[in-house]
Amino acid sequence: MLKLYGDPASGNCYKVQLLLHFLEIPYDLVEIDIMAGETRTPAFLKMNPIGRIPLLELEDGTHLAESDAILFYLAEGTRFLPDDRLGRARVLQWMFFEQYSHEPYIAVLRFWKLYAKKSREDEPQWDAREKAGYAALDVMEQALDGRDWFLGEQFGQGPTIADIALYAYTHVAHEGGFDLSGYPAVRAWLARLPTLPGYLSIRKR
Amino acid sequence: MLKLYGDPASGNCYKVQLLLHFLEIPYDLVEIDIMAGETRTPAFLKMNPIGRIPLLELEDGTHLAESDAILFYLAEGTRFLPDDRLGRARVLQWMFFEQYSHEPYIAVLRFWKLYAKKSREDEPQWDAREKAGYAALDVMEQALDGRDWFLGEQFGQGPTIADIALYAYTHVAHEGGFDLSGYPAVRAWLARLPTLPGYLSIRKR
Repeated sequence: MLKLYGDPASGNCYKVQLLLHFLEIPYDLVEIDIMAGETRTPAFLKMNPIGRIPLLELEDGTHLAESDAILFYLAEGTRFLPDDRLGRARVLQWMFFEQYSHEPYIAVLRFWKLYAKKSREDEPQWDAREKAGYAALDVMEQALDGRDWFLGEQFGQGPTIADIALYAYTHVAHEGGFDLSGYPAVRAWLARLPTLPGYLSIRKR
Repeated sequence: MLKLYGDPASGNCYKVQLLLHFLEIPYDLVEIDIMAGETRTPAFLKMNPIGRIPLLELEDGTHLAESDAILFYLAEGTRFLPDDRLGRARVLQWMFFEQYSHEPYIAVLRFWKLYAKKSREDEPQWDAREKAGYAALDVMEQALDGRDWFLGEQFGQGPTIADIALYAYTHVAHEGGFDLSGYPAVRAWLARLPTLPGYLSIRKR
């Protein structure tokens, strides 16, 4: 059985769980408390020297880190990853966008609020990160305008791991103070994903 | 012919050029000056709504963004990307590490120095980003200890796009003020990559 080390209230962990549920793949969840330093223990660092969750343990004991690399691994050969080279690269384009231009802003504000219990006044970086988060939402709104999923009809494709990766923190962006009222295409897409069979809600923190 | 929009002094652009040279794939380079706002013009945003370089234009006019997604696209079916599922996921693990835990620190300090002409005193984030950059180098040192390339012998593999992605900004880390003297495995790996046939130097800024 696969083993997933993570925090089910973290979007990076949740996105892996969501795909596992869509694919009906059984797994054991091993809960890790980052605020208690559990990703920095010698035992954890031996499994993942990067010291982050989520971390996937395969049946042979191999460990794989980085949420979007785990999604790619699990999605190969399934309907959540296109067969063709350009489709796979397009999925990766959106996942790298997610980790570089979206997560550091939209997830981090939520982390500051929910986990670190900080407010705007405590964090000199708050305004700049909020602005960059809205810039990421602008890109998403434009990409989703007129299409159901990020890869769209061009690829004859339904939802992919690009949608799952971006859904994870976007659907809880309000918990970091983001207002999505000006993003109708993003909101329609956020309402569309939970209608897929096997959907799982993120655990509340 | 492929067209690459980018700045050959930027590591994210250079890593794509490096792979194109290793693979002996001809391409046209269209130079883009980010400091002159050339990634924010309506014409550029039409090609890449994310507003970043590098950007690859395929022969049919399709555009692909995000440096590491471009590397993956170009490397499929070549010796720079493993054939097996775990090997590909491991390559992606290192590329997501590069974009999330390495580039925002090691590349950004270099950007501040070389492009924005800032010094430590101008940037309240300098010390924190420098510390995070050394943390990324620590992870790399541990990963490379006893092996030639990031994927190592476990995958029966020579250099991959994981090495190319991480080489791009690591080999110019000193331009951002990083001291690699305490990283012998990283330094040996940095000396190894330029011995590969087809190697290209980064353009000096």
